[in-house]
Amino acid sequence: MGSGGPREGTPFMIGLLGMGNVGSALSRLLSERAAHIAARTGREPRLAGVLTREQGSFPEILQGSELIVELIGGIEPAREYLLESLRAGRHVVTANKQLLSQHGDELFAAAAQAGVQLRFEAAVAGVVPVVRVLEESLAGTHIERVHGIVNGTTNFILTEMARGLTYEEALREAQRAGYAEADPSDDVSGADAAAKMAILARLAFGTPVRLDEVRYEGIEHLQGDDLEYARELGLGLKLIGTAERRDGGLSVRVHPAFLYAGHPLASVSGPFNAVTVESQTITEITMSGPGAGGLQTASAVLGDIVSAMLMPVSRPAPVQHLPLVEDFESAFYLHTEVTDRPGVLAAVTQVLGEHGVSIKSVVQRGMGERARLVMVTHPITESRLKAAVAIVGEFDFVRSRPRLIRVIEEEFM
Amino acid sequence: MGSGGPREGTPFMIGLLGMGNVGSALSRLLSERAAHIAARTGREPRLAGVLTREQGSFPEILQGSELIVELIGGIEPAREYLLESLRAGRHVVTANKQLLSQHGDELFAAAAQAGVQLRFEAAVAGVVPVVRVLEESLAGTHIERVHGIVNGTTNFILTEMARGLTYEEALREAQRAGYAEADPSDDVSGADAAAKMAILARLAFGTPVRLDEVRYEGIEHLQGDDLEYARELGLGLKLIGTAERRDGGLSVRVHPAFLYAGHPLASVSGPFNAVTVESQTITEITMSGPGAGGLQTASAVLGDIVSAMLMPVSRPAPVQHLPLVEDFESAFYLHTEVTDRPGVLAAVTQVLGEHGVSIKSVVQRGMGERARLVMVTHPITESRLKAAVAIVGEFDFVRSRPRLIRVIEEEFM
Repeated sequence: MGSGGPREGTPFMIGLLGMGNVGSALSRLLSERAAHIAARTGREPRLAGVLTREQGSFPEILQGSELIVELIGGIEPAREYLLESLRAGRHVVTANKQLLSQHGDELFAAAAQAGVQLRFEAAVAGVVPVVRVLEESLAGTHIERVHGIVNGTTNFILTEMARGLTYEEALREAQRAGYAEADPSDDVSGADAAAKMAILARLAFGTPVRLDEVRYEGIEHLQGDDLEYARELGLGLKLIGTAERRDGGLSVRVHPAFLYAGHPLASVSGPFNAVTVESQTITEITMSGPGAGGLQTASAVLGDIVSAMLMPVSRPAPVQHLPLVEDFESAFYLHTEVTDRPGVLAAVTQVLGEHGVSIKSVVQRGMGERARLVMVTHPITESRLKAAVAIVGEFDFVRSRPRLIRVIEEEFM
Repeated sequence: MGSGGPREGTPFMIGLLGMGNVGSALSRLLSERAAHIAARTGREPRLAGVLTREQGSFPEILQGSELIVELIGGIEPAREYLLESLRAGRHVVTANKQLLSQHGDELFAAAAQAGVQLRFEAAVAGVVPVVRVLEESLAGTHIERVHGIVNGTTNFILTEMARGLTYEEALREAQRAGYAEADPSDDVSGADAAAKMAILARLAFGTPVRLDEVRYEGIEHLQGDDLEYARELGLGLKLIGTAERRDGGLSVRVHPAFLYAGHPLASVSGPFNAVTVESQTITEITMSGPGAGGLQTASAVLGDIVSAMLMPVSRPAPVQHLPLVEDFESAFYLHTEVTDRPGVLAAVTQVLGEHGVSIKSVVQRGMGERARLVMVTHPITESRLKAAVAIVGEFDFVRSRPRLIRVIEEEFM
């Protein structure tokens, strides 16, 4: 029931699991804003207890709380704690994208069973309120597609690469600025973004999607000259997460993608996150904001706490089981290092033509051994293009494995 | 109580006042999405009746409804109908910005008194979910400032002017494309944006702000060459609504403003709306989407209906009475037509200097009788700058009244 009723006027007790950056910021925000929140909800939020590796007892904290905030991260013991909390009738607010994307079914079922709230705005796109907008503003909308820049680290690196840095230089810059970890693999591989897209897909389409069903590629293999050619072709390069209806099913994936300059995500730069939601009724909504930071994440957690205090339990959206679609049409950027000699372009375009690949634009640059052939195709299924590219790769004038990157066209509606 | 409880399974009856573009689109969406909404809320939404000039009886519709949707527009009879609905314990969803910005106090009080919901997402920024984000995601946040492009017509006109059209040509283009009315004065004068900013200010700061307290200027007097100089100075020109804490009070206003290229609103073009919310805890969130269109507005109304079905009544945010601040520092663009002869720049800068106006950049262009002096100042109070400009205007080499436009700098935090 949230606030009001018999408990009006009594403190609203919160158990906090984890006391790192986000936990400390949350603890500070809670005391700073307690009076304001009390005026809004009728009850003052107060910490019942804090669990860290060094201190606190989970059973005691659970006993004394109406809501549990989980900021431990990882799978265990977070999963155990949250299942136990939900089964004990406590609301849960979590920022744990790994847990939700791998064990979401179990957690959502436990919340529904107990009639309590499971909120997780901070797990997806930092302060960008995409969870709330999908669950509430767009609850009546048939959504076609969600595109997101949901990893600030990689967006920062790509922004620096667009300024001329190599991948390695940009990564070092991100590490120096505190946007990338010493081991950046979870971010740069696309795995972090994939977990977030699994959560977004569930929300947007009511279909349970597990992390291991999301195909992802990262940014580690991008070259500075991909960004240069992109500029010549009027494109920007971003790590894009996509969840969309395709061919009667659903496609959920993360990969580098070229965007035309007018795309609402093309101008999102630095460590920002942004999500665009498309449907026929709304056309599109884009939301952007900082993707990380202890204070920002704490603020998203606090918004969820206030909502849990205010709102009743809504029933979860009905589960639909849309099939996952893997092979579908899109435009591609194709980058091939070639030895420049007569007949190269003709040989390549003939193979592509035989596989039904139609070329939208071509840039040929360099001479002799250092020539490069860059093309943007019209939409073609990935399987057909890859078959053609495998044959192209066999030509003796091709000097390294051709590179493919998807291009997001103004293909909506 | 919204859904569930004793009425679970029974239809949720909706009375619709007004059946223009938005009303027709809503009626269609309601039947298309009825089953989906029923699965989500436990009750199927259904139209109890429709009131137009030609048909329907308000008392009968009220009698048979749990929620009233008002799409009539204007003050009367919309005000009468909504007060009566709220007092009779009906939830209300409205898209009526004029009514909310002029009679908000009365309506919000009636809703609180009756313990029902008054929702109005569609009244502010089209499908951009700024009302929900301010009321819910940011309920725990101390907001510093809201900047908005909340009128799609003027943003379309300014986008066309930036492409080289005159104001008159751009207006005709907007009329031809259906973005501007035959009589565009409510949009181009800034009055429409002012009503929306009054509503946003109330939400962001908990302070009742009436339309007649919002200062506004429109875009009718902008010249093509203001946009040209802007480009030279690295600025974009938008009609910006601002609601912000200033000097211990609140400033709420609408006026053309120059934005530096990196500002999140600088890239919002065409008939789109966008709102940026700033606070120390979240840094900033920007949301953008189409500003108008029958289907888009109907979709925002439908989101409010679903929320009213799902949610209990939250108590309104506590009312604060912050004073409205009128005169404060900002940077300005100053455009003066002068006769080009020795000593002109010296004379102007001396007067400005005597009034404490410091110059950030100067562009001098043209010769003889057609010369123009364009300056961007450092932050200065409007009253001091206007005093200096009045003296500058008296010089015999000044050929027309100097023009002032505010510049929004990266002044946050």
